[in-house]
Amino acid sequence: MDPPNDWYNLLADLDFELPPDLPPPNGAAGGLSPQIPLSLIRQELSTKRWTPIPDDVVARFRQWRPTPLRRARELEAALGTRATILYKYEGANMAGSHKLNTAVAQAYYYKAAGTKRLAVATGAGQWGTAIAEGCRMFELGCRVYMVRKSYEDKPYRKTIMEMLGAEVVPSPSEETETGRRFLAEGQSSGTLSIALAEAMEETLVEGTRFCAGSAETYSMLHQTVVGLEAMAQCSELGAWPDVVVAGVGAGSNLAGIAFPFLGRALTGEGPEVRLLSVEPAACPKLTKGRYAYDYTDSSEQTPLQKMYTLGSRFTPPSMHAGGLRYHATGKLISALFDRGMIDAVAYRQQEVFASGTLFARCEGIVPAPESAHAVHGAVVAAREADERGESPTILVSLSGHGLFDMSAYEAYSNGTLDDVEVADETIEESLAQLPEVAEPVASAGGRG
Amino acid sequence: MDPPNDWYNLLADLDFELPPDLPPPNGAAGGLSPQIPLSLIRQELSTKRWTPIPDDVVARFRQWRPTPLRRARELEAALGTRATILYKYEGANMAGSHKLNTAVAQAYYYKAAGTKRLAVATGAGQWGTAIAEGCRMFELGCRVYMVRKSYEDKPYRKTIMEMLGAEVVPSPSEETETGRRFLAEGQSSGTLSIALAEAMEETLVEGTRFCAGSAETYSMLHQTVVGLEAMAQCSELGAWPDVVVAGVGAGSNLAGIAFPFLGRALTGEGPEVRLLSVEPAACPKLTKGRYAYDYTDSSEQTPLQKMYTLGSRFTPPSMHAGGLRYHATGKLISALFDRGMIDAVAYRQQEVFASGTLFARCEGIVPAPESAHAVHGAVVAAREADERGESPTILVSLSGHGLFDMSAYEAYSNGTLDDVEVADETIEESLAQLPEVAEPVASAGGRG
Repeated sequence: MDPPNDWYNLLADLDFELPPDLPPPNGAAGGLSPQIPLSLIRQELSTKRWTPIPDDVVARFRQWRPTPLRRARELEAALGTRATILYKYEGANMAGSHKLNTAVAQAYYYKAAGTKRLAVATGAGQWGTAIAEGCRMFELGCRVYMVRKSYEDKPYRKTIMEMLGAEVVPSPSEETETGRRFLAEGQSSGTLSIALAEAMEETLVEGTRFCAGSAETYSMLHQTVVGLEAMAQCSELGAWPDVVVAGVGAGSNLAGIAFPFLGRALTGEGPEVRLLSVEPAACPKLTKGRYAYDYTDSSEQTPLQKMYTLGSRFTPPSMHAGGLRYHATGKLISALFDRGMIDAVAYRQQEVFASGTLFARCEGIVPAPESAHAVHGAVVAAREADERGESPTILVSLSGHGLFDMSAYEAYSNGTLDDVEVADETIEESLAQLPEVAEPVASAGGRG
Repeated sequence: MDPPNDWYNLLADLDFELPPDLPPPNGAAGGLSPQIPLSLIRQELSTKRWTPIPDDVVARFRQWRPTPLRRARELEAALGTRATILYKYEGANMAGSHKLNTAVAQAYYYKAAGTKRLAVATGAGQWGTAIAEGCRMFELGCRVYMVRKSYEDKPYRKTIMEMLGAEVVPSPSEETETGRRFLAEGQSSGTLSIALAEAMEETLVEGTRFCAGSAETYSMLHQTVVGLEAMAQCSELGAWPDVVVAGVGAGSNLAGIAFPFLGRALTGEGPEVRLLSVEPAACPKLTKGRYAYDYTDSSEQTPLQKMYTLGSRFTPPSMHAGGLRYHATGKLISALFDRGMIDAVAYRQQEVFASGTLFARCEGIVPAPESAHAVHGAVVAAREADERGESPTILVSLSGHGLFDMSAYEAYSNGTLDDVEVADETIEESLAQLPEVAEPVASAGGRG
């Protein structure tokens, strides 16, 4: 089997448009647009169903794609469930996760647009490693601002990024004004929004451009290689998912594996499918956030996007799924959730690591903490189905490996893992600080 | 593609027999035989070409097999070579290496023979993780004696083994007489032979049996799934190897990937193939050892096997490829080398890590230090071929991932990696202590 030659664009099959971005109310002139190659902006706005993948990108994909889709028979047996559990494993590449899919594409387009060097932000290090590899492939310089908590917890992520030629800086750092401001405020463990703001500031350096990450709609487009492969593999297996489950930070992981299935359902070419977002109780943007216009990072310089958000100033408590510590979800995922086309659940990390450990023992792959959220979502969904006497097919996005997260698994098995959750009052306080803007048109029929 | 249903036995196609084992000259009554299930002893001695793989083992193989075989196009480009470099990647399983192939089979046969618990020795931790996973699959208890140097350098290996339900003990330990003896002598960093001796001693515990590892001929049989898959994948690609390269500790890695190709060549069904063993300059058993009867571990209780050896009392200097720190190679690999059917080279770890880093940058997989030896062997072979104006196809065994060896890669990139080698006098001293035995019959036509 070959990797796909085209990406699938869900926007082609939706009967609504995304709410437009708005300029920041503080009058900041900035924004992402001048940073991003026109080719990617076109993809962001396109409503064409298929976008051809450049040959150079397909050639790189062949280094690790197609990725395996397997049935988790041992996990099914351990649960005693009548559900069928399939998983698609994206972790067997050097970046260790699905993020490499869009990183390769983004590095390609930035290079084609004449960029010399990229500045990026990374939480757990997976995006940083992915973009470092993309930059290596297309000969771009690379500076990574890495959330300090992860930088200290996962030193080998730094080593890998440096092996790939990237420069890695813990965030908040002394290198930018934003970083110095947060350090002065005593905020040293960092968040993804601070790191994003630092990376944006880095673009003051000549020839350097900011490369966003996973929340953008074009990242979701690039990730559809996962779902397109999964559809072909499901057909081969003679199994089709009733539910597709993924851990959700900004949402590209869920988008990538699920949108091709959802598209088939929307056009009537495939059966109904339930999309299930699993987020941490420590950062519950879909389950406890608000659908509102907000900043995508804490610099408050970017255009506002309508998203499910906990507020751009929200700092989630420290926890091991660093990739899920983002304050909001991408606008496309948010719009689908608002319309009831995605379900969302939130779990605490102890139960998540219990399911992650069970999966590892049964299936022989240690899930990344982010992916362990999806596994736990599938475990709960299977149990609920058993109670209802149903036997669905559940497809899990095993988006990354957890081999750099063994200290977290060790803490879980020692009983020293913090079972973090965030108080409702903290969320209310944060939401009270959302920017005040007049919404262009209220979206009809949503939950927001 | 499905994993194979039969293992391939090279002994069927050799025109000579292996030298028989001999009882230890010190009159020790022990030996491995009472420890090993009859089914495995039959496989050790069998000359049948094909052995059916039990259905329960094939079912487990499907969790991670077939493994990918890919062309290393980026590495070829970086080298500017006219050679074609293929690699077969065995690292994308929880054990992280090819060792899981035989661990699953061995756990199956021990369980079938009524064993309750296995005691094993591990160097870098790959064998320990593999057998812990095999034991988990077939519900056996498991105690792992891990070379202390690796235990300390690679704490996450321990965490994974414990996740799989195994008990992990650093060797030399206070748990056995052998361990206490070496500790009293001030030998605390350990070697694989000491750990082996400790695991053997552990079998005094009721219901516990020793499970050898990789040097046994049946381990090599089990590993042939790698080469059989590779043959099918090479046929699909329309490329057939002129050279097959693998890092060699005891030799099952080389055996697994190369024996099926060698068998085809021997029976005239396939073209000639060169087998290339790559060993560390710190433990150069084929390139500097002697073909002689020796103990397989430092307990001096086991039957003597005729092997290329540096002496069972030889302690290689500390280095990062712990899996290659064994004092000898298996008797089948040794006999083939003696007959000129295998070539051997030895390299220092700095050049090995240089090639490992280059491979990671080019191909997106961090090789285990053991596998980086094979990569370096391929790099040198490609360069030599270019000088001769040849363009061979080189197949590399990428036997494991190096994600738990990032500190070694970090040391390499910092310039703090020790470039260890062993002095000829040290080897001479060790070889002077080989047991004195009368050989049954001199093997005709060998180099020994």
